[in-house]
Amino acid sequence: MEGFVDDSLEFRADVRERDLTHSSHSIGIVEKDRLDPWGETSVANYDRLHSEFGIDRIEPLIPRFHGKLSLHIRRGIDFGQRDLGRILDAVDNNKPFAVMSGIKPTGVFHLGTKMTADDMIYFQSLSKKATVFYAIADVEAYNDNGLSLKESSKIAVQNVADILALGLDPERAVVYKQSQEIKVMRLATIFSRGVTNNMLKAIYGERQVGLYLSALIQAGDILMPQLAEFGGPKPVLVPVGADQDPHIRLTRDLASAYREDFGFIPPSSIYHKLIKSLDGGTKMSKRSASSTLTLSEEPSSAAKKVMAGFTGGRSTIEEQRRIGGEADKCSIYDLYLFHFALEDDYAKRVYDECYGGIRMCGDCKKELSVLVKKYLEDHQKKRESLMKDAEELLERSRKTLDSMAR
Amino acid sequence: MEGFVDDSLEFRADVRERDLTHSSHSIGIVEKDRLDPWGETSVANYDRLHSEFGIDRIEPLIPRFHGKLSLHIRRGIDFGQRDLGRILDAVDNNKPFAVMSGIKPTGVFHLGTKMTADDMIYFQSLSKKATVFYAIADVEAYNDNGLSLKESSKIAVQNVADILALGLDPERAVVYKQSQEIKVMRLATIFSRGVTNNMLKAIYGERQVGLYLSALIQAGDILMPQLAEFGGPKPVLVPVGADQDPHIRLTRDLASAYREDFGFIPPSSIYHKLIKSLDGGTKMSKRSASSTLTLSEEPSSAAKKVMAGFTGGRSTIEEQRRIGGEADKCSIYDLYLFHFALEDDYAKRVYDECYGGIRMCGDCKKELSVLVKKYLEDHQKKRESLMKDAEELLERSRKTLDSMAR
Repeated sequence: MEGFVDDSLEFRADVRERDLTHSSHSIGIVEKDRLDPWGETSVANYDRLHSEFGIDRIEPLIPRFHGKLSLHIRRGIDFGQRDLGRILDAVDNNKPFAVMSGIKPTGVFHLGTKMTADDMIYFQSLSKKATVFYAIADVEAYNDNGLSLKESSKIAVQNVADILALGLDPERAVVYKQSQEIKVMRLATIFSRGVTNNMLKAIYGERQVGLYLSALIQAGDILMPQLAEFGGPKPVLVPVGADQDPHIRLTRDLASAYREDFGFIPPSSIYHKLIKSLDGGTKMSKRSASSTLTLSEEPSSAAKKVMAGFTGGRSTIEEQRRIGGEADKCSIYDLYLFHFALEDDYAKRVYDECYGGIRMCGDCKKELSVLVKKYLEDHQKKRESLMKDAEELLERSRKTLDSMAR
Repeated sequence: MEGFVDDSLEFRADVRERDLTHSSHSIGIVEKDRLDPWGETSVANYDRLHSEFGIDRIEPLIPRFHGKLSLHIRRGIDFGQRDLGRILDAVDNNKPFAVMSGIKPTGVFHLGTKMTADDMIYFQSLSKKATVFYAIADVEAYNDNGLSLKESSKIAVQNVADILALGLDPERAVVYKQSQEIKVMRLATIFSRGVTNNMLKAIYGERQVGLYLSALIQAGDILMPQLAEFGGPKPVLVPVGADQDPHIRLTRDLASAYREDFGFIPPSSIYHKLIKSLDGGTKMSKRSASSTLTLSEEPSSAAKKVMAGFTGGRSTIEEQRRIGGEADKCSIYDLYLFHFALEDDYAKRVYDECYGGIRMCGDCKKELSVLVKKYLEDHQKKRESLMKDAEELLERSRKTLDSMAR
């Protein structure tokens, strides 16, 4: 994930151009003018997010990474940001900053979640002054999935082991369960008095009060690293999918509203595109097991899912040879691009061969299924060996948090 | 507060009748058909609360107190209940039950709060199996009054000393700060998903989400004593002013909705009338310092406030002699009745002398101001001697709660 040189940017620009050329489903955002963190937002035209939602482009900041670009940034998977410069300032000046994310511990760490984890780990690696805050949303898991706190507690250990296996440095990480972290709930309660129904409606549309509260709790998660107990105000980066931007906007508004009392700096964000689901849907979601790959599933069953995946292939081999396939529509290509083709050249080759009519879907899927199987076998082995470290990290974090701010 | 005999009921009935006869401001509930815990609900006709809100009368349960009636019940100040029989069953069968209340630690323990405390302490005294749960609403104090958690922490100690001075048995009491009690917040979050905006709107009207959340937190406070950590489901009594009934209804609905998961028994409640403010308003409120008496104020200044209080007196002494005063409209009489005339005979005498044209307002106020001054001097001395006990109770409670249910 490190040491890539800037010429990879050519690849990035190349993909972007093709995106626009080939993409036939540029219907914009499904629910017009609204990103929906709880729905099935499909973002087909990411340019609209810049023009309509004020998400800034990453390109102008590229030189500031000093050549250490992540796979996501190089490939245009991370496509936008808000105040990312603030984080890069902290890196340059060797000042403390935080990277914040979370997971709902419902048993599966799927590839969408992995993308957030990858970003988090990458930014942690950029500076010794970076601390990762990771929230285990066990109360949400109870509310949404009926999972008892005890059940999700078990799953949480595995989720943490997953992140450790992906490369998190546990020495600069605080992992906590929402059900145990009163500081987050306290902030949520305070924020609940600072927002009006109209503000919430403008950001999220008309929702049940429970979803509004869940948004306020997430704002608490994001701003907690800036409390005095954690060294006070500092830049905080939140890597998210584009559909989560409403939470970022709300939290930035709240940070401004409570600046006088808490000194909050509005959080920064970086946005990744959503990986297609294996059935061709626009967002891989935990809700549909057959169309989602997770880090926990049996490697050979994952390989089978890949073989059954939706592609951008033509009706006949003859046609595909003649006019080429459509990688931009293909869930298989997304898996190469987002996760499994670690070398840029390899991803580019898959893409070119597809559009060039050289690569046939059957072979392409077979090739990927081997990669996926191998990846999962290695990952799961690594994770198994890190279960004890995960427990220790959870325990250590709990002690740290408990000792604070009574 | 104990050992009163049943003939006091005559006094009760008497007052009730006069209430209806003399009361000229029987305009019902100000905001039609809605009790408002956050507004200035004025309840002039308590009968409507029985017929329209389904609050049950206390009278049928009187024999079940075995002659040990509180001052509030004897005098019809406690005028209604929901499922109070469940608490009396627990008393009779020597089964555990809880009495739950709370305070916003904004510095003043006023006479309205004292009424709730009196009820709480009375029901604690009815059985060795009664445990009091007392919530210090410090997050609300921050939200509503801008009080930092540190400031309200200091005030909370004094508030707890106030209750100890009023007679709370600390051995069977758990006192906690909302800002530290994750179990309450966890319940509030869970409940937030079980209610719809329509349910909340039906109970409270259209409100800001922050007030809805504060209602859900109060539901968490009320139901926490039934969690497994506290011995599981049990009857819980909440003594409140009539204006707080919406919280009780919401909590009873939630208890039913979550019975399967938690085994909750719907909480019981007992309602007291609201004491008039010294300026003649219908509810003594912290918002108006000049028209409110608190347990913390300088005794001689309190005496002065009494002397300036709104009475039910006539324009001239001559008129008052001729047709009598109107105790039912008088803030001074309320102070006798609710708090300072400890003997029923004495309260009855003040009332009769007023309507009989024998008692003039100036003398009546002077008489009361002496009582109030003496009461506050004694109370404050007692409280001072209990500050250390209050700190210990808070500390012990915190340890108990922390050790639970991680």
